[in-house]
Amino acid sequence: MRYKLGCSLSYQLAFDTTFIFNLEVAQIPSQTIVSEALSFTPAVQPRVYADPMAANRYFGIEVPAGDFALEYNAEVDLHAFHADPATIDEIPVNQIPLDILPYLLPSRFVSSDRLAPYALAEFGALPRGHQRVNAICGWINEHLVYQPGASNEQTTADETLMKRAGVCRDFAHLGIAFCRALGIPARFVSCYAYGLVPSDFHAVFEAYLGGRWWLFDATRQAQLDGLVRIGIGRDAAEIAFSTPFGNFAATGMEVRIARADGVQDPGPRTVDAISTDDGRAL
Amino acid sequence: MRYKLGCSLSYQLAFDTTFIFNLEVAQIPSQTIVSEALSFTPAVQPRVYADPMAANRYFGIEVPAGDFALEYNAEVDLHAFHADPATIDEIPVNQIPLDILPYLLPSRFVSSDRLAPYALAEFGALPRGHQRVNAICGWINEHLVYQPGASNEQTTADETLMKRAGVCRDFAHLGIAFCRALGIPARFVSCYAYGLVPSDFHAVFEAYLGGRWWLFDATRQAQLDGLVRIGIGRDAAEIAFSTPFGNFAATGMEVRIARADGVQDPGPRTVDAISTDDGRAL
Amino acid sequence: MRYKLGCSLSYQLAFDTTFIFNLEVAQIPSQTIVSEALSFTPAVQPRVYADPMAANRYFGIEVPAGDFALEYNAEVDLHAFHADPATIDEIPVNQIPLDILPYLLPSRFVSSDRLAPYALAEFGALPRGHQRVNAICGWINEHLVYQPGASNEQTTADETLMKRAGVCRDFAHLGIAFCRALGIPARFVSCYAYGLVPSDFHAVFEAYLGGRWWLFDATRQAQLDGLVRIGIGRDAAEIAFSTPFGNFAATGMEVRIARADGVQDPGPRTVDAISTDDGRAL
Amino acid sequence: MRYKLGCSLSYQLAFDTTFIFNLEVAQIPSQTIVSEALSFTPAVQPRVYADPMAANRYFGIEVPAGDFALEYNAEVDLHAFHADPATIDEIPVNQIPLDILPYLLPSRFVSSDRLAPYALAEFGALPRGHQRVNAICGWINEHLVYQPGASNEQTTADETLMKRAGVCRDFAHLGIAFCRALGIPARFVSCYAYGLVPSDFHAVFEAYLGGRWWLFDATRQAQLDGLVRIGIGRDAAEIAFSTPFGNFAATGMEVRIARADGVQDPGPRTVDAISTDDGRAL
Repeated sequence: MRYKLGCSLSYQLAFDTTFIFNLEVAQIPSQTIVSEALSFTPAVQPRVYADPMAANRYFGIEVPAGDFALEYNAEVDLHAFHADPATIDEIPVNQIPLDILPYLLPSRFVSSDRLAPYALAEFGALPRGHQRVNAICGWINEHLVYQPGASNEQTTADETLMKRAGVCRDFAHLGIAFCRALGIPARFVSCYAYGLVPSDFHAVFEAYLGGRWWLFDATRQAQLDGLVRIGIGRDAAEIAFSTPFGNFAATGMEVRIARADGVQDPGPRTVDAISTDDGRAL
Repeated sequence: MRYKLGCSLSYQLAFDTTFIFNLEVAQIPSQTIVSEALSFTPAVQPRVYADPMAANRYFGIEVPAGDFALEYNAEVDLHAFHADPATIDEIPVNQIPLDILPYLLPSRFVSSDRLAPYALAEFGALPRGHQRVNAICGWINEHLVYQPGASNEQTTADETLMKRAGVCRDFAHLGIAFCRALGIPARFVSCYAYGLVPSDFHAVFEAYLGGRWWLFDATRQAQLDGLVRIGIGRDAAEIAFSTPFGNFAATGMEVRIARADGVQDPGPRTVDAISTDDGRAL
Repeated sequence: MRYKLGCSLSYQLAFDTTFIFNLEVAQIPSQTIVSEALSFTPAVQPRVYADPMAANRYFGIEVPAGDFALEYNAEVDLHAFHADPATIDEIPVNQIPLDILPYLLPSRFVSSDRLAPYALAEFGALPRGHQRVNAICGWINEHLVYQPGASNEQTTADETLMKRAGVCRDFAHLGIAFCRALGIPARFVSCYAYGLVPSDFHAVFEAYLGGRWWLFDATRQAQLDGLVRIGIGRDAAEIAFSTPFGNFAATGMEVRIARADGVQDPGPRTVDAISTDDGRAL
Repeated sequence: MRYKLGCSLSYQLAFDTTFIFNLEVAQIPSQTIVSEALSFTPAVQPRVYADPMAANRYFGIEVPAGDFALEYNAEVDLHAFHADPATIDEIPVNQIPLDILPYLLPSRFVSSDRLAPYALAEFGALPRGHQRVNAICGWINEHLVYQPGASNEQTTADETLMKRAGVCRDFAHLGIAFCRALGIPARFVSCYAYGLVPSDFHAVFEAYLGGRWWLFDATRQAQLDGLVRIGIGRDAAEIAFSTPFGNFAATGMEVRIARADGVQDPGPRTVDAISTDDGRAL
């Protein structure tokens, strides 16, 4: 499916400010970038970096004090891989590729070590495979309230479990934490999400099952086969769409994605297992 | 300088257990591995993985229930780079290479976001450069007690600051947290440490200054120019010398390092700035 | 029922040490103290204090360096009040006596404010009254493992919920926290517990329902009608059996309680609601 | 000195709501209440309770949905006791009256147990007595920023130390925590504070030294001899000026205090030690 997507961000800066952004579509086999444009007002010259492992694309800019606007637009063919969830098993820990080890370990917002007893008690006995991670998402969706303002940029997965509330970022962190605590590699995914209302940057997660990474959304808000990946990381810290160094005020933000063919109805959500990686560990 | 080093580890396992180890000397330009041997009793076949970015060498083994022993020995030429600390400046955030970004972000045990107000208040006004990081190490050394048992495997940098006590791992996490909070990239380093008494795996940290990574030891116990690197990581989670999946009892552990020429006196500690990277970001 | 009970404690002290103890049986209408003896070796002169509100009896002693032993024995008639749980309702918050307010508020180890969302989600819709608090105890008993060593003297109710493990103190703190979060006054009770195996100081809790305080034991280990009260408090901090100021080593501890008539079989546990207060708020 | 003081509070309530207030002047020997009036619009009938130990006056009201206003006015003669700080010593722990024990223990927001290593390291070697507590206040005032919004109603003393920012409540909690960690009984005091700009309910603390409770204000904003006490407690939880049970919106709040003689200049702050208790432990 081809999507038109992008974002428009604007800031007011009291001082010259360094920003690092991660909002461009990842260049991975399942995402063909048909066209793409990034512009700045006033014009600044970005430094760019693409992580050779994760395929995340970062750019850093030095913005002078005053008003600043950024515009990104892209047209992307998304080739989501579908499979029957019942066919997807977990991988014994002694067969998990070693380069995936980081995604089994706790990270800043994914306190899987603290949550291990809880995860084992709630999910330890469930049937394994894609269905277990799906059950985790169902549990989170049932037990947590989606509530903007319930969390902040330092909120960890164990705090979210206690507060029983959060936003997509928190839902993803908790899902990842439960998975890692159970020995299932899991990682954070930022994306443009077709069908998300209201439109915004979205956060979901991937679990490594049966030899590839599968997408999950504990908020149940997104179309899993309509997620255009921006970045992957241990947790939200690594792939914030914007990492500013300095004081700033965000004065505008619009995130958009639509089908390129103009069809507007997102339709029912798929019940397939969905993957956008190419079957290699990455 | 040439060092003979290694370790002998033994375990008693109630069940078949998967281990991932990271205890071999890193293959980096500053470390020439003259000879090296790794053996297991009973014999098992390791899976190996070397992180292409960090040069960490991991191996995973599946160990049957019963007694298990691991022996590693190596002879290594260490080419430590020396410089005058006064010549080493901090790098403005807009010039920090983007691939170093992860080492500016908070991680599981390096709660640099929580510690930002504290770091700015204590160290924000200090003269910049190698001397600022050295002053941070001095502050930690003065304010914390080195005390085995004061921390556990979930202890974070902010908890260490509150407890005013910890081991090398905790001293390193706190030093890294203060650096990151001040905009100085910093990372965790595990190593064989010449002159450390009693001998053990040691943890220090590196800060990225003036275009390369410089070694710091907030415990002041190690010879900075006698540190043979095993691994680097965001924090201790990534480069535990042993990550076991299962129940086990450690029944023995010896870590050793000596000068290959037989000279035993470690001598006074260097006052130079020491680096073992080759001037590239890695 | 008449009980013989007491304790023998011994310590080794490197320096002169001040202790405050709270281990004597509370003088309340439901507990008739037939005889009682407290002795110290070497002899020291206690300062005594009985809290006029809570009836807790404290004594402070200044113990010289060296070996120290304390022996307490009492014979007590316990008049436990029985009722049908189905007849005991919760009290609307606007009718709760104001002197009970402290037992609705969070305290050091009873983080009822942090646990409010969790408590409301799990227990908010349950039928009210004695049965709701009993259901909370059942939930705790089912979801937590009784595990000495899982907690320490700083462990809070929210941490216990996360760890899914603890001892009687932790089970009581969590029960109290859930109650307070639901608007049910609750307080910590230390006691001699008939039928507890192995014998030890025990911790349970009381909830204020229908005009008096009712006993609950989330560990399900005690005979509710065989609990001889020592002290009540907001949480364990207030009624530690021993609050030492100084360094010490505990070298011996025995806690005992038996029926005065010599009958040894504790028999089945009561299913009645049990209270040992006299129907006043205290 | 005679003061006119009071407050006007207004609320908008979606539902019938129970409130417990603690905002009337405490009836203690050092405070002669010349006149006093409390009124509600619409009229409601309060339940009242005066804590026999702490002298805190609570009233509970059941307010119907809609707009609600409360007005309190009093004229009070304050007899502050002055002394030379240099004459006021700390009391050895074995001489502290046992009824003061609760004020040595950690409480919900006063995590003195967690802060013990920090307190001992920073203040353990300071000269003892009133001057040590004053030095603690000076340290807090120097190291923390007074910053509305930096904390919330669940913020604890250890979090405040880490954030290096807070409001009067947080400054008091941290001062109390340091004192308790050092073996100095300390408690939270809510008050009308003459000279405070802008006028508001204020929080300070008392430390028990030389046989009575002495006032301290780590914010250095109040006139110590112009503090008219409302309540005392282990921490803010016990003596919130308003404890609501239900949803509400505060629509107005004015707190006022002025000298009854009309003199407006608060003048320089006293350097005396100030106490408003009568030399008994309470």
